[in-house]
Amino acid sequence: MKRNILILNGPNLNQLGQREPEIYGKRSLADILAEAERHFADRDLELRQQQSNHEGELVTALQLAPQWADGVVFNAGAYTHTSIAIRDAIQGITIPVVEVHLSNIHARESFRHSSLLAACCLGQISGFGWRSYLLGIEALLTHFDDAEEAN
Amino acid sequence: MKRNILILNGPNLNQLGQREPEIYGKRSLADILAEAERHFADRDLELRQQQSNHEGELVTALQLAPQWADGVVFNAGAYTHTSIAIRDAIQGITIPVVEVHLSNIHARESFRHSSLLAACCLGQISGFGWRSYLLGIEALLTHFDDAEEAN
Amino acid sequence: MKRNILILNGPNLNQLGQREPEIYGKRSLADILAEAERHFADRDLELRQQQSNHEGELVTALQLAPQWADGVVFNAGAYTHTSIAIRDAIQGITIPVVEVHLSNIHARESFRHSSLLAACCLGQISGFGWRSYLLGIEALLTHFDDAEEAN
Amino acid sequence: MKRNILILNGPNLNQLGQREPEIYGKRSLADILAEAERHFADRDLELRQQQSNHEGELVTALQLAPQWADGVVFNAGAYTHTSIAIRDAIQGITIPVVEVHLSNIHARESFRHSSLLAACCLGQISGFGWRSYLLGIEALLTHFDDAEEAN
Amino acid sequence: MKRNILILNGPNLNQLGQREPEIYGKRSLADILAEAERHFADRDLELRQQQSNHEGELVTALQLAPQWADGVVFNAGAYTHTSIAIRDAIQGITIPVVEVHLSNIHARESFRHSSLLAACCLGQISGFGWRSYLLGIEALLTHFDDAEEAN
Amino acid sequence: MKRNILILNGPNLNQLGQREPEIYGKRSLADILAEAERHFADRDLELRQQQSNHEGELVTALQLAPQWADGVVFNAGAYTHTSIAIRDAIQGITIPVVEVHLSNIHARESFRHSSLLAACCLGQISGFGWRSYLLGIEALLTHFDDAEEAN
Amino acid sequence: MKRNILILNGPNLNQLGQREPEIYGKRSLADILAEAERHFADRDLELRQQQSNHEGELVTALQLAPQWADGVVFNAGAYTHTSIAIRDAIQGITIPVVEVHLSNIHARESFRHSSLLAACCLGQISGFGWRSYLLGIEALLTHFDDAEEAN
Amino acid sequence: MKRNILILNGPNLNQLGQREPEIYGKRSLADILAEAERHFADRDLELRQQQSNHEGELVTALQLAPQWADGVVFNAGAYTHTSIAIRDAIQGITIPVVEVHLSNIHARESFRHSSLLAACCLGQISGFGWRSYLLGIEALLTHFDDAEEAN
Amino acid sequence: MKRNILILNGPNLNQLGQREPEIYGKRSLADILAEAERHFADRDLELRQQQSNHEGELVTALQLAPQWADGVVFNAGAYTHTSIAIRDAIQGITIPVVEVHLSNIHARESFRHSSLLAACCLGQISGFGWRSYLLGIEALLTHFDDAEEAN
Amino acid sequence: MKRNILILNGPNLNQLGQREPEIYGKRSLADILAEAERHFADRDLELRQQQSNHEGELVTALQLAPQWADGVVFNAGAYTHTSIAIRDAIQGITIPVVEVHLSNIHARESFRHSSLLAACCLGQISGFGWRSYLLGIEALLTHFDDAEEAN
Amino acid sequence: MKRNILILNGPNLNQLGQREPEIYGKRSLADILAEAERHFADRDLELRQQQSNHEGELVTALQLAPQWADGVVFNAGAYTHTSIAIRDAIQGITIPVVEVHLSNIHARESFRHSSLLAACCLGQISGFGWRSYLLGIEALLTHFDDAEEAN
Amino acid sequence: MKRNILILNGPNLNQLGQREPEIYGKRSLADILAEAERHFADRDLELRQQQSNHEGELVTALQLAPQWADGVVFNAGAYTHTSIAIRDAIQGITIPVVEVHLSNIHARESFRHSSLLAACCLGQISGFGWRSYLLGIEALLTHFDDAEEAN
Repeated sequence: MKRNILILNGPNLNQLGQREPEIYGKRSLADILAEAERHFADRDLELRQQQSNHEGELVTALQLAPQWADGVVFNAGAYTHTSIAIRDAIQGITIPVVEVHLSNIHARESFRHSSLLAACCLGQISGFGWRSYLLGIEALLTHFDDAEEAN
Repeated sequence: MKRNILILNGPNLNQLGQREPEIYGKRSLADILAEAERHFADRDLELRQQQSNHEGELVTALQLAPQWADGVVFNAGAYTHTSIAIRDAIQGITIPVVEVHLSNIHARESFRHSSLLAACCLGQISGFGWRSYLLGIEALLTHFDDAEEAN
Repeated sequence: MKRNILILNGPNLNQLGQREPEIYGKRSLADILAEAERHFADRDLELRQQQSNHEGELVTALQLAPQWADGVVFNAGAYTHTSIAIRDAIQGITIPVVEVHLSNIHARESFRHSSLLAACCLGQISGFGWRSYLLGIEALLTHFDDAEEAN
Repeated sequence: MKRNILILNGPNLNQLGQREPEIYGKRSLADILAEAERHFADRDLELRQQQSNHEGELVTALQLAPQWADGVVFNAGAYTHTSIAIRDAIQGITIPVVEVHLSNIHARESFRHSSLLAACCLGQISGFGWRSYLLGIEALLTHFDDAEEAN
Repeated sequence: MKRNILILNGPNLNQLGQREPEIYGKRSLADILAEAERHFADRDLELRQQQSNHEGELVTALQLAPQWADGVVFNAGAYTHTSIAIRDAIQGITIPVVEVHLSNIHARESFRHSSLLAACCLGQISGFGWRSYLLGIEALLTHFDDAEEAN
Repeated sequence: MKRNILILNGPNLNQLGQREPEIYGKRSLADILAEAERHFADRDLELRQQQSNHEGELVTALQLAPQWADGVVFNAGAYTHTSIAIRDAIQGITIPVVEVHLSNIHARESFRHSSLLAACCLGQISGFGWRSYLLGIEALLTHFDDAEEAN
Repeated sequence: MKRNILILNGPNLNQLGQREPEIYGKRSLADILAEAERHFADRDLELRQQQSNHEGELVTALQLAPQWADGVVFNAGAYTHTSIAIRDAIQGITIPVVEVHLSNIHARESFRHSSLLAACCLGQISGFGWRSYLLGIEALLTHFDDAEEAN
Repeated sequence: MKRNILILNGPNLNQLGQREPEIYGKRSLADILAEAERHFADRDLELRQQQSNHEGELVTALQLAPQWADGVVFNAGAYTHTSIAIRDAIQGITIPVVEVHLSNIHARESFRHSSLLAACCLGQISGFGWRSYLLGIEALLTHFDDAEEAN
Repeated sequence: MKRNILILNGPNLNQLGQREPEIYGKRSLADILAEAERHFADRDLELRQQQSNHEGELVTALQLAPQWADGVVFNAGAYTHTSIAIRDAIQGITIPVVEVHLSNIHARESFRHSSLLAACCLGQISGFGWRSYLLGIEALLTHFDDAEEAN
Repeated sequence: MKRNILILNGPNLNQLGQREPEIYGKRSLADILAEAERHFADRDLELRQQQSNHEGELVTALQLAPQWADGVVFNAGAYTHTSIAIRDAIQGITIPVVEVHLSNIHARESFRHSSLLAACCLGQISGFGWRSYLLGIEALLTHFDDAEEAN
Repeated sequence: MKRNILILNGPNLNQLGQREPEIYGKRSLADILAEAERHFADRDLELRQQQSNHEGELVTALQLAPQWADGVVFNAGAYTHTSIAIRDAIQGITIPVVEVHLSNIHARESFRHSSLLAACCLGQISGFGWRSYLLGIEALLTHFDDAEEAN
Repeated sequence: MKRNILILNGPNLNQLGQREPEIYGKRSLADILAEAERHFADRDLELRQQQSNHEGELVTALQLAPQWADGVVFNAGAYTHTSIAIRDAIQGITIPVVEVHLSNIHARESFRHSSLLAACCLGQISGFGWRSYLLGIEALLTHFDDAEEAN
C-alpha cells in the first residue's frame, strides 16, 4: 500500500545546510528530502517537505495534513518547547506524528529538555542529525505495517 | 566492516512478552533479538543481549562493553530517571550509546519525563515499542558509516 | 444604543464542529455565530466572527477591533496560556474583552490552569461549551448597560 | 419543566452591599436574589439563597442541596482557594454546580488564581460583579435544556 | 483493662454508604461501628463514633476526647491536608491518635499525598476501605498492650 | 476618650494555661484578660475576650467587632497560616487589627513562618508569651493616640 | 483457603533487633516472623521472609513472588523513596502488595514523606513498629476475604 | 535592678526623619531615643543608640553588646532578609535580642517577608512605626521581670 | 566605513505614539527613526525600520538581516520573554544584535524580568523610553569601532 | 546647565584593567573616567569616580550622592544580585540612578540574571564593556534634557 | 593504639587510573592504597580497600565494617547524590565515616552539589584528586587522637 | 621551596575559643595558628592569619593575598552562603584557595548546604573542627608538590 508522508519543519530549519554546517551538517532540507527518497526508493512511498517559521502556519499545516498524508515526521524546532497551540493541532488529527530533532535536546539547555508535543506524538527521535528524519520515516512505515497486520 | 552491538536492558525488561502483552507486546527480549538479527541479516553485524535488574551490574556491563562491542543500544528502564551511576558509566566509555524506550516516556508520569542518561548518549528513541530497538541499531549503524566516511 | 461585538477565536478553533464532535460539539464557528444572532435577535446588536491560528494576527485583530467593535468576546485557545503579546494587545485597547473557553480550563492539564490574559480582561467564562460564547455576549451587553447607567 | 436553583454563598458575602459599595456594588445578597427573580420572571424557576461563613456548613449545604435543588450557583469566596472539603462535597453530589465570583480572581493576588473547586464544577464565571450570579443561573438553565434535548 | 476508643470522622464521611457505594462501599459509619463492635467483641473495649463537617468541631472533639477515651482512630478526610488547627489539637492531647483513610491517599491527586496530621499521630493506615478502621483499632489495642508491658 | 478593645483568639487557645504550662505558661485566657485589665487600669479602656475553634465564627466575630470595638488584638492561632476567609474579614473592617502570637512563629516549622493575615493588619507581635497581648493592646492605644493627634 | 504471604524487606532491615534496639525494638526479622506465625496460628496461612540490601534483588523477588505467594507485605526501607524500578516491579505483578514501615515516615525528614511505591500498592501502614507487619498481614487476609466474598 | 539596653540600627536608618517623612515619620533616631528616654523615665533604664550601614559593623556591635547591655532592640533593616552573618552573631551572644521593624514587613515585597534573624531572637515586632522601638524596649523589660521572677 | 543598522520591532510596537502617550511617549516608530537619523546625521550610517506582530516574521527578518545590515537594534516586545525561536534566529546570525526596551523590564511584572534573548545578544538596554533606541545604535557603532580597532 | 555625575563602582572593580585584561579590557577605572571626560568634553559636565568593596560604604555613598551629584552611573558588581540594603539606599534618594554592567549579566550564571536594584533605577545597560559607562552617562544626560524640556 | 581503616569506594571507581587519566589521574585504587600505606608508614595503621558498583553491596560493606575497622574513608561516587539506603547504613554504624571525593562536587553539575550522606558523616573532603583519600585518613587519625584525649 | 599561606577567616570567627567552647572548641584563631605552626614545623612554611567581620575587607584581603601568599586557607563563615562578591574575588586571583569549615555545613540548616564559593576553590574540607585548618594547609602543600612535579 502506498504511503504519503509529510516532513514538517519549524522555525530556523530553512537555514539548514547554509549556516554553521560544522554543527548542523551540510545538508539542506531539500538535500535531506533527496536522501530520504533515495534511501526509501524501494518502498511505495511519497514524501513532501514543508517548512515555516510561523507557529500559526504549522498549526494550519497539521490541520490540513490528513487530506494528503498518512503520517507526519515533525521537527518543530524551538516551538517544541513553547507551543501548546501546535500540541493541540497534533491532538486534533488522527494520523500519527513522529517528533524528530537534529540534536539531542536532552543534552542541551534545560529549557530544551521538555517537549510540550511529545505527549501527543507516537514517539520521539533526537540526536542523530539529518538521519533523525530517516529514522522517523522508518518508524512511521513500521507503525503502518503493524497497524495493517493488526487488521 | 563487521560491527558488534550490545543490546543492554535494565530492570523488569526480563518480563517482556510474558506480562501485560496487550501493552508491552508479545515479544520477549529473545524474540526481539531474533527479529533484529533477521532484520539486519544482510549487514555484517553481530548482536548480543544482556539484561539485569541490578543498577550495579548495568554499570559493570557498560564498563566491560568496549571489550567486545562497537556500540550499545540501551534501554535502562526505570534507572533512566534515577541513576547517576549509570550516567557516569556511559560517560566513562568512548563507544556510542543509543538510549531507547518501548513507551514514549515523555507522555507518561512526570517523573519519567527527564532522563539522567540522555546528556551522555548519542541520541534517544522512545515510543515505538519493540521496534525502538531496531531503530536504535539502525541509528548506530548509520553513525558508524558517518564516522567511517569522515575518516 | 446599537452595539458591535467581535467574536475573536484563536488557534485550532477553525476545526470546531468538524472534529471530535462528541467532545467539542457539532457546531462550527459559523453555527455559533448564527445561534448567537438568533438568541440576541431582539437586541440592537451586530456580531462579527474572526479566527486565526497566528498569534500575530490575533494581536493585530485586537489592535484594530476598536475601529468597529464596542467589545470583544475572545477565546484565545492555547495562546491563553503562552502569549504575553496578546496580553499586551488587550491591555493596549480600552474596549472591554471577555475571555471565554469551551472547556473548563481549570479542570484540565495544569499548564492550562493559568491564563496570562485574565488580568487584562473584564472577566472569564469557561466550561459551558459553545454556550460560553452566548454567556460572554450577555456579559458584555450587561456591562454596557451598567456603564450607561453610571453616566 | 420547573427548576429549583440554590444560590450558595461563602464567607464574608453576607456583608455584600453594606461595605465598600464602590468596589463590591450596592446590592446585598437579598437584592441580588430579587434581581435574579425579576430577570428570570418568565422562566419556570425557583431560587433560594443560603450563606455561611463556616466551611462545614457549606459542606453540609452542598450535601443537602439535591433534596430540593436541580443545580447550584456557588460563590465559595475565600474557601475557593483553600477547601478540599468543599471540593469533596461537590464531587459527592450529582447535580451541576456553577462556580461564580464577583471579581476576576485571575486578576488578583496569586493565591486567588487557582480554584480547588473548579475541577468538580460545570464551569466558572468570574469578574462580572453581581451579574456573575445571573450569568451563572443562565448557564445552569442552558445546561438543563441541553440535557433534556439529549434525552 | 477496659479501653475506650473514639472513632472520629471528618467532612463528608457522614455520607458513607449512601453515595457512590461502588467506590466507598455500602457501609455507613454506623455499620462500621457495628462491624467493629462485632469484630472486637471478645476484647474489653468500648467504641464511640463522632462525625463533623466542621474543622472547629473536630478541634473541640479532640480537646475533649481524653475525658473519656484512651485513644482515637481518626479519619480527618479533606482536613488531613489543610488543617494546622487540627494538627495543633492532636499535639495538645497526650492520648494516642491513629490516622486512617479509606482510600490510599498516596495514590490519588498530589494535594492528597501529604498529611499535616501524620507528624503528630502514632501512625497512619490508608487504603483498606472500611477495614482501615478495624486495623486502626487493632493498632491502638496493640499499642496499649506494649505500653502496659513496658510498665 | 474611652476605648473598647476586643481580644480575639483562634483555635486551641481555649486550652491555654491548662495544658503544657511549662511551654505556654500557666495563664488562661481569663487570667490574661485580668492581667491586662490590671496593667491598663489607669487608662480609659474596656476589654472583652472572645475565643473560637471555628474559622467561620472568627470571620463573624471580626465582621461584628466594629459594632462595639475600636480595635482588635487578634491571635488567630493555626488559622494565621491557612485562612484567606479571615484575611478577607479583616480587610472588610476599618478598625485596626493587631496580630499577636505567643510563640515566635518565625522560629518554628516553616509552614508557620508566613502569615496570610499580616498584610491586612496594622502590625505583628510574636514571641513574648502572654505578654504579647499586653504589647498588642499598648500598640493599639498608641495608634489611637497618633490618629487623634493627626486630627 | 490456604494463603501464602511473602514478607519482603529492603536495605538495612537485616540489622533489625541488633542495632539501636531502643529505637527499632529488640525483635529481629526472624523474631517478627515467629511472632506473626504465633499471632495467626489459627489461620490457614504460610509465611516466608526474604531480605535484601539490593534494589535489583528486590525487583527480582517481586517478579518471582506470584509463583508462590498470594500477597506481599513489603517494607522497602530507603528504596521506598528512590526506586522507580521497584515501583515498576510491583505494577508488573497482579497479587496485592501492602506497604509497611516501622516508623511513621510522614513524621521524619521530608525526603521520607513521599513514597514512590504507594501508588501501586493496596495500602500503606506506617508507624507501629514491628506490629506494622502484623497489621499488614491482617490487611492482606481481610482483602482476600473481601475478594472471595465478591466472587 | 538597673537595665542597659542597646538600640541597634542597620542600613539606611541613619536617614530616618530626614527623608520621605510622610512615610517613615518625622522622627530621627536621636528623636526616637529621646522619646524612649521620656517614655521610660520612671524605670531604672539606660539606653544607647548605635547605627551602621555595614553588615560587618553590626556583627561586631552584637559581639560587643554584652559587655555593657542587658538586651538589644534591633532593627536590622535590609540585612534582616540577607545576612546569615548577623544571625550567627545574635546566636553567639546570650543576652536577649528583640527584632523590630518600622513597617509591617509581612505586608511588603515578598523578599521582605522572611527574616533570617527571627529564629535567633526573643520575638519580633513590626509595623508600628517609631513606636515599634518603644514596644521592643517594653518587651525586653517585661522579659527581664519574668526572668527575675523565675529565679 | 558606512554602517547599515536594522531597527527591528516586535508585537504591539506599531501602536507606539498613538496609544497611552503619557506612558509610552508621543513618538511613533517613524518619529523615532527620524530622531535617530537626525541624531546620527554626522555618522556614515543608514537606518531601516521593520515591525511585525508575528513571531515567525521576526525570525525571518533576523535570518535575512545580514544580507543588508551590519547590526540590529531589536525590541522584541513580549516575545522577549517567550520566544526560543527568535533566540535561535539571533544565535544563527553572526552580526551583533543589541536588545532594547522602552520600559525597565526588570521593574515590571515578574514574567517580564527574564529575557530568553539576552544570552545571544551583545548587550541589553532597558528603561530609557524611545531613547533606548538611540543608546542601542550608539552601542552598535561603538562596537564596530572596537572591532575595527582590533583588526 | 552644568551637570555633576557620580560614577559609583562596587566590589572587585578596583581590579579593572589589571587582571584578566583579555576579558574585562585593559582600562582601569581611572582610564574609563579619562575616556568619559574626553568623550563628553563638549558638554557642561563634571564626573567623579568612587569605588568600594564594602556594601555599607556603597549605601553611604548613595545617601551622600545628592549633596553634589545630579545623577549616578552605578555598577554595583556582585552586590547587584544580593543587596537589599543598596536597593533601599537607591530608593531613598531622588536623583536618577542608571545601572550599568561590563558584561551581559543575562548571559552568565543564573544567579546573575536577576537584579535587586533594577526596580529602583531609571534603566539598565549591560554587556558593552567599559563603554557601558559612556552609554550610562549618555542616558543620564538625555534624561536631564527630557526633564528640563518637560518643565 | 593500632587503627584499622577501610577505604570504601562506590560505582565506576574501579576504573580509576585506566580511563581519562588526564582528568582523574594515573593512579588506580591499588596505587592509592600503596601511596597511603607509604605516606602513613610510621603510624600504627592498617588499611583495606573495597570497591563495588552495587548500592546493596556498599550497604552491606558498611554494615560489616565495624567488625574490623575503626573508621571508614568513603567515596560513594554517584550514590552520594541518590542513595538514602547508604545514608541509613552509615547512620546505623557507630564508627566514624569520612566522605571524600576526587573532584570538587560543588563545582560540577547541580545534581552533584548536594550529598545525601554528608549529614551522617564526620566531615567531607572534596576536590583534591587521589590526595582526598590521604586527607581523609589524616582526618580520621586526628579524630581518633581527639577522642582518646577526651577519655 | 618556601611557601607562604594565608589563613583567612570571615565573620564571627574572632569569637572562636571564647564562646560556646563545648561546641566550637577551646582554641582561638591564635591557638590554631600556633597549632598549625607546631604541626608543620618541619616544612618550609610561613603562616599568617587574618580575620574580618566585613565582606568588603575579605574581598580586599583576597585581592591583596597574591602579593605575599602562595595559597589561601579560607573559612568564609556565613558569607560562604551569601557572598557573590567574595566569589568574584576568589575567581579574580590565580593562587589556589581551599575552603574550610569547622562544622559539617552539609549537616546543618538547609541554607548552609550550598556554597557560592566552592565553584571557584580548589576543594572543600568541612566538619573536622579546628583540624579542618590543618587539613586545608596539608591540601595546599600537597597541591604545590603536585604542581612542582608537573613542571
